[in-house]
Amino acid sequence: MGHTNDEELDTKEIDAVSVSSSKRHGDNLPYVHKVGLPSQQNLVKEFKTTVKETFFADDPLRHFKDKSKSRKFILGIQAVFPILDWGRDYTLAKFKGDLIAGITIASLCIPQDIGYAKLANLAPQYGLYSSFVPPLIYAFMGSSRDIAIGPVAVVSLLLGTLLQSEIDPIKQPEEYLRLAFTATFFAGITQATLGILRLGFLIDFLSHAAIVGFMGGAAITIMLQQLKGFLGIKTFTKKSDIVSVLRSVFESAHHGWNWQTILIGASFLAFLLFAKYIGKKHKKLFWVSAIAPLISVILSTFFVYITRADKKGVQIVKHIDKGINPSSINQIYFHGDYLVKGVRIGVVAGMIALTEATAIGRTFAGMKEYQIDGNKEMVALGAMNVVGSMTSCYVATGSFSRSAVNFMAGCNTAVSNIVMSCIVLLTLELITPLFKYTPNAILSSIIISAVIGLIDYDAAILIWKIDKFDFVACMGAFFGVVFSSVEIGLLIAVSISFAKILLQVTRPRTAVLGNLPRTTVYRNIEQYPKANEVPSLLIVRVDSAIYFSNSNYIKDRILRWLTDHEEKHKAKDFQRIEFLIVEMSPVTDIDTSGIHALEDLYKSLQKRNIQLALANPGPAVISKLHASNFVDMIGNDKIFLTVADAVQTCKPKMHIEV
Amino acid sequence: MGHTNDEELDTKEIDAVSVSSSKRHGDNLPYVHKVGLPSQQNLVKEFKTTVKETFFADDPLRHFKDKSKSRKFILGIQAVFPILDWGRDYTLAKFKGDLIAGITIASLCIPQDIGYAKLANLAPQYGLYSSFVPPLIYAFMGSSRDIAIGPVAVVSLLLGTLLQSEIDPIKQPEEYLRLAFTATFFAGITQATLGILRLGFLIDFLSHAAIVGFMGGAAITIMLQQLKGFLGIKTFTKKSDIVSVLRSVFESAHHGWNWQTILIGASFLAFLLFAKYIGKKHKKLFWVSAIAPLISVILSTFFVYITRADKKGVQIVKHIDKGINPSSINQIYFHGDYLVKGVRIGVVAGMIALTEATAIGRTFAGMKEYQIDGNKEMVALGAMNVVGSMTSCYVATGSFSRSAVNFMAGCNTAVSNIVMSCIVLLTLELITPLFKYTPNAILSSIIISAVIGLIDYDAAILIWKIDKFDFVACMGAFFGVVFSSVEIGLLIAVSISFAKILLQVTRPRTAVLGNLPRTTVYRNIEQYPKANEVPSLLIVRVDSAIYFSNSNYIKDRILRWLTDHEEKHKAKDFQRIEFLIVEMSPVTDIDTSGIHALEDLYKSLQKRNIQLALANPGPAVISKLHASNFVDMIGNDKIFLTVADAVQTCKPKMHIEV
Repeated sequence: MGHTNDEELDTKEIDAVSVSSSKRHGDNLPYVHKVGLPSQQNLVKEFKTTVKETFFADDPLRHFKDKSKSRKFILGIQAVFPILDWGRDYTLAKFKGDLIAGITIASLCIPQDIGYAKLANLAPQYGLYSSFVPPLIYAFMGSSRDIAIGPVAVVSLLLGTLLQSEIDPIKQPEEYLRLAFTATFFAGITQATLGILRLGFLIDFLSHAAIVGFMGGAAITIMLQQLKGFLGIKTFTKKSDIVSVLRSVFESAHHGWNWQTILIGASFLAFLLFAKYIGKKHKKLFWVSAIAPLISVILSTFFVYITRADKKGVQIVKHIDKGINPSSINQIYFHGDYLVKGVRIGVVAGMIALTEATAIGRTFAGMKEYQIDGNKEMVALGAMNVVGSMTSCYVATGSFSRSAVNFMAGCNTAVSNIVMSCIVLLTLELITPLFKYTPNAILSSIIISAVIGLIDYDAAILIWKIDKFDFVACMGAFFGVVFSSVEIGLLIAVSISFAKILLQVTRPRTAVLGNLPRTTVYRNIEQYPKANEVPSLLIVRVDSAIYFSNSNYIKDRILRWLTDHEEKHKAKDFQRIEFLIVEMSPVTDIDTSGIHALEDLYKSLQKRNIQLALANPGPAVISKLHASNFVDMIGNDKIFLTVADAVQTCKPKMHIEV
Repeated sequence: MGHTNDEELDTKEIDAVSVSSSKRHGDNLPYVHKVGLPSQQNLVKEFKTTVKETFFADDPLRHFKDKSKSRKFILGIQAVFPILDWGRDYTLAKFKGDLIAGITIASLCIPQDIGYAKLANLAPQYGLYSSFVPPLIYAFMGSSRDIAIGPVAVVSLLLGTLLQSEIDPIKQPEEYLRLAFTATFFAGITQATLGILRLGFLIDFLSHAAIVGFMGGAAITIMLQQLKGFLGIKTFTKKSDIVSVLRSVFESAHHGWNWQTILIGASFLAFLLFAKYIGKKHKKLFWVSAIAPLISVILSTFFVYITRADKKGVQIVKHIDKGINPSSINQIYFHGDYLVKGVRIGVVAGMIALTEATAIGRTFAGMKEYQIDGNKEMVALGAMNVVGSMTSCYVATGSFSRSAVNFMAGCNTAVSNIVMSCIVLLTLELITPLFKYTPNAILSSIIISAVIGLIDYDAAILIWKIDKFDFVACMGAFFGVVFSSVEIGLLIAVSISFAKILLQVTRPRTAVLGNLPRTTVYRNIEQYPKANEVPSLLIVRVDSAIYFSNSNYIKDRILRWLTDHEEKHKAKDFQRIEFLIVEMSPVTDIDTSGIHALEDLYKSLQKRNIQLALANPGPAVISKLHASNFVDMIGNDKIFLTVADAVQTCKPKMHIEV
């Protein structure tokens, strides 16, 4: 297998002479290695590399290399509209899968859309509108093959809460709608801008744990909101926190609850949850849970129609506008006070929508082993929301539950979204009047059974097991949403995530190393109790780049290790520390503040008559140490390739002294 | 020297068998080491450790250990008032040094104070007030022995700019003064709060480079402001940017300049700069530069008085209130609109003052080898400004130039501040009327010669050499201050510092490792061109903790290394990669997002039929990998102590396969 004799020989030799370089340090043998000093890099090249790693880490231009201009143009168009690429290989076999998947997610999305629109305080048709235009745009521009686009519960709730705090949706329905379109427009602009500027990594600042907590809290809040429809309560609080909602529920207990509504709602909720259970238990029966909502809607609507239960206080949908999306371009606020508010709401909603869509895209791309360019994806999502805002849609994104159904139903490409979109079109044109008698309680049941999956106990338990700090972030976001509002929960989630980053950069770890008996390996003595500290040497490893944010801490911490060490050994027959070896392997970079800290450390050690030695500085570090003359300060002979080398060199000196 | 025979024997044995543990991997010899799994830590203990490292990294309670209650109480009082500690060993010999140093810095601070008060748009006596009360308070509570407390140029300028943008100092002098006291009060509260909550490390977020740029820019701005006094211009712009100032200067060229003023100013500036030069050249003559300002004031005042040059357009100080600080408690705004503004200005000014004082404290403590508790220091500075705000002082802090003089004049303790304070008291009570004829041009000259030292070319050049990104931060702050305002410059400095932190946590480095010939050492192949990649293995080192902020990037980057590697070797007689070894030594921690990323990486590799192996995970990482069952997923036998071990184990298998 291309394994030359020469290589084999080489390998054997390594096996035979597999000693650390330290073994022969001092002899002038050719295989004693020095710390490598990289050649001075060209400034422009260095800058280019940094920019590339920061913004083009995924190397999106790989395919453009060494191509003719016309080819580059075609590739560019294909990059913006991936359908032009995969569409050419599209086959009837693939369409079969997409058709079935599309029909399945359409049957699921239609009742959900009507319910989600209510979460955003919008008329039901706006939910359906948002399942028509955005999926079409996405199919042309997006690169995920499995995502199902449309309105989703959490974003609808968030948008509803944010908009409501600015405009009352009942007193000023027209302004409210206009602000919703404005927010949607700027949500799209935010998403597309992040993508174009390749700042997509910014959404990584919301940690997984924070998202789990936020989603769980949002699910609870959404379910609580459904109590209104589920119990048939007429006067309900506008606040979303659990205390206000439960008070509202119990205050209306005497006169506000409607038993017919509860009966319908409860029985269909039981049916939906059972269908969900079956779908989970037997993967092949997933379609049962997928079409259960539509069946519930049809059955309950028919039931209300023949029993005229609406006369007995069962609240019904009453009216959905017929026909496809009207234009809404001139409803968007492009100036005035509401512009600022729209931008603010749009940025928040857009970011959250992005977080959800990106997580979905990554999950399914990982399962089917294809690559997704996160930034390109953001441009697609942004474009779809901008167009959406002009065609009476509100913020759409990828839905967790429908994407999973789409995947299981065997979708192959984004064509399933086109199929779904067509079915929604037909629904809007033909059958919306049939929804007149659909009871609200059914929509509530459907929403409850949909969002119940967002409460991820297992993830929370795993987070508890793995990382306690993450668990605090998770619970902070969860309780913030449940007991206060989605905004507060989100704020808590972001703040805790940032606090963690700050902690990471200001308080990096350091460790004292000891020698593993009979090896040249040096390891953390806390992790390896067998590791022995070397007498009269202290070996400290710094586990982070040394930057302004932590340089003082690192210097002080190293000196504290020294003091601790001296105190610990005070009682015993104490051997004075003569060398402090700093293992620099994990120190990937250093800045001017870091070098100042090292200089201070060196001076402090000098005063205590202790020598400073460095082991294995990386390329960036060693060149900066040279540039700043720090190497000349401590002496080039104090910089070693490995800790073992440093120990070897520092120890003999003491033997002579003894 | 406590070097037992036993130890010596052991050492020799290590020398002799100094082979990597990998050498004998597989044999059941006792010295084959496994990756250490730390015992499950108690939750409370873990939490305590984290809190301690974060907030009590300097172990301030060390001295309180194992002491009786009464002793602890005395130590507590001493901790708040260090003078009670060092005061007991105070001797006459020490006082001699402090007396001389105190007189020297007093002679320097009196003319500076009068000038700096003008920078803050305040009457000259407020500068002197601020050199009387704050140094006294500091002497009792502070722990630096060399810092000289009082008003400083940059903070005066910053405070003046911020206050001026809220209230016009000429039209509403009373409100302006009240807002200045309010800001001072809250600056003190901010400083003390940061200290008490042990959040002192927050000021580390302004990087060294940003401070160099900011200080340089502020110095230029201050010098430009002095052109007014120096040229005797009557109508001067209120803006501080270089364009506005120079326009103002040239527009007044025809009628506004006063040649007598320029003559006085220029000749004394030349004298001051010459004195400064002498002081720098001959360290022993530092006192020449220290008393030159006072001599200039005396000479020029006398000169103006006898020539009555003030009648010829030479602007003079005119009037300084006689007597010590009046109370200003009831002038502080504790409610209303100005309260909010005062808090905002106070927080900014307080932080900058803190940055300066902390830098000075650290520098001199390092030189004389004593410890300073940064947080305790902040409490002292905060207390002094709170008391100051109630006694007609504005924000005081440590002055770079005066502290250096204090140090060189041989100060021993904070008593030199008390001496200075007493001299300022005498000045206020007795000789302020004598300053009546002091020409403003002299004050301008003194300020110019004082702030010129803040422009640190050498530091800027060094920053350029060491770190280009730092240089951008430095220049951003510099040009922001010079061309816009101190606020904008500060904002730029903070933003760039934060951008750097974000870059650090989102885009950590990764490196491909190769084997250094005839050793078991594996190093970055870019730094060590001699290092050989091992055939059919790819060894990647991740140089950072894996957190939510970078987990996706790290996963993608590792996969890109793989793709790059495959592409590079495509042409050649290619040997398929069978093992990917991730060197985890620098990975100090991992969170749930990080573990998800590793799982995704594992799945992606599985699909490509590549095995994943980990080398040397640290204590936090290995316990989390166990907790999340990731270890079971990849197999415990895929986790190695060293890269060499991993290579050793992965290679033989292939030999069998070949």
